[in-house]
Amino acid sequence: MSTPSNVGDSQRGTHGVERLTERLREFADDREWHQFHTPKNLVMALMGEVGELAAEFQWLTPEQSSRVLDDPAAGARVLAEIGDVMIYLTRLADVLGVDLVTAATDKLAASAKRYPADEFRGSAMKAPSQT
Amino acid sequence: MSTPSNVGDSQRGTHGVERLTERLREFADDREWHQFHTPKNLVMALMGEVGELAAEFQWLTPEQSSRVLDDPAAGARVLAEIGDVMIYLTRLADVLGVDLVTAATDKLAASAKRYPADEFRGSAMKAPSQT
Amino acid sequence: MSTPSNVGDSQRGTHGVERLTERLREFADDREWHQFHTPKNLVMALMGEVGELAAEFQWLTPEQSSRVLDDPAAGARVLAEIGDVMIYLTRLADVLGVDLVTAATDKLAASAKRYPADEFRGSAMKAPSQT
Amino acid sequence: MSTPSNVGDSQRGTHGVERLTERLREFADDREWHQFHTPKNLVMALMGEVGELAAEFQWLTPEQSSRVLDDPAAGARVLAEIGDVMIYLTRLADVLGVDLVTAATDKLAASAKRYPADEFRGSAMKAPSQT
Repeated sequence: MSTPSNVGDSQRGTHGVERLTERLREFADDREWHQFHTPKNLVMALMGEVGELAAEFQWLTPEQSSRVLDDPAAGARVLAEIGDVMIYLTRLADVLGVDLVTAATDKLAASAKRYPADEFRGSAMKAPSQT
Repeated sequence: MSTPSNVGDSQRGTHGVERLTERLREFADDREWHQFHTPKNLVMALMGEVGELAAEFQWLTPEQSSRVLDDPAAGARVLAEIGDVMIYLTRLADVLGVDLVTAATDKLAASAKRYPADEFRGSAMKAPSQT
Repeated sequence: MSTPSNVGDSQRGTHGVERLTERLREFADDREWHQFHTPKNLVMALMGEVGELAAEFQWLTPEQSSRVLDDPAAGARVLAEIGDVMIYLTRLADVLGVDLVTAATDKLAASAKRYPADEFRGSAMKAPSQT
Repeated sequence: MSTPSNVGDSQRGTHGVERLTERLREFADDREWHQFHTPKNLVMALMGEVGELAAEFQWLTPEQSSRVLDDPAAGARVLAEIGDVMIYLTRLADVLGVDLVTAATDKLAASAKRYPADEFRGSAMKAPSQT
């Protein structure tokens, strides 16, 4: 596993999702922003940030998109947008009382059943709807 | 800090973002899906999942949105969508070589400077653009 | 039917979707931007603009959202974002060879069958999935 | 100008945006759905539909995205999603009292000034922020 480009080795693991969750809570407390942070509003904020992230990638070829961090200006914008998306997703999970990593792990387990490796190898086909 | 509704006390902290990152990598490896997982494609997938999450909240009042997990059917859908959003965000960070929590923590530090608590207390105003 | 706030009576109807489609095509031709305007890229651009529109509404109460045009600055931003969304949607329809109003009218007919007025009056419930 | 693939010649132009706007208003009236159709809620619904549209394109290459209508099943889904996006955009414009085509035409005029053809020919660069 390679070291991410935006973190020194010494930092790795020192900031978990729980610590981030607490910091975001303090940040909102200090500014009395809880009143704005309903789940519905946070989903809209999340949408806004994902939209800004999309704008960074919209005209890039697939190959260019893989090298987006090589450009210092575009790379800094992409990092900031990914940070913003993670901020609102973490905040949304917190106000709903949801553990983010558990939600993802549970969903991954469901996807593993829905998409057996042998059946979907190399295929971008969608599995039939689960109704 | 209250316990999230979707995690038992014993599980808490056992699944970090790094472990999730590794599981998602294995999941993609097993299915030979790396070819589809360019940053550009993953941003689109992220957007699709955020759109599904938005659809769960679109007609709710602010108050209803705060109680969305009380309804078993809607609650399960919201948990699954939050899981999907986290899955694609984690996968995007991985293929770009970005540490997700560090990106969020760095962005939060920038926001703390941009929005001094004393100046923005109780206000939803946007700070002037940073150009 | 009341007159929209951003159009004089004399203008009404002089700009149809077809005229807009042609203007957008000329605009792209003049700048040699066809190379960027694949359906996939235009969907991402559409997402980016809808995200910017969402950002204008994210912290508003339902009531404030209904009066958003009353504020000159926010109103101008909302009008510009709606314009941008329509621009990319029209352009997407054009490169795919789709008639936008017909697509909407056809979908509306399908929704009218799926949501009989007597059954769904006053209800925000979603109809069961059409599989 | 080629004929769109989803419209017969005889239909062309018979359904304008104004007629669509009226039909959508009747549709909402018949179901007493006005209560749900605040601008904020409609922006979320718009986002949900754009997310579904994005999901159709997420794993496609640029070339595949240009031929998406050639596949009957995927093509029908794309047409339906484009229809849904247009439906919510038209409805949003109506509840805000905005003329959709005028908003787009005005924004295009602003973009023409911001992106002079001679300066931005063949370039996907973003113009500097207008502050």
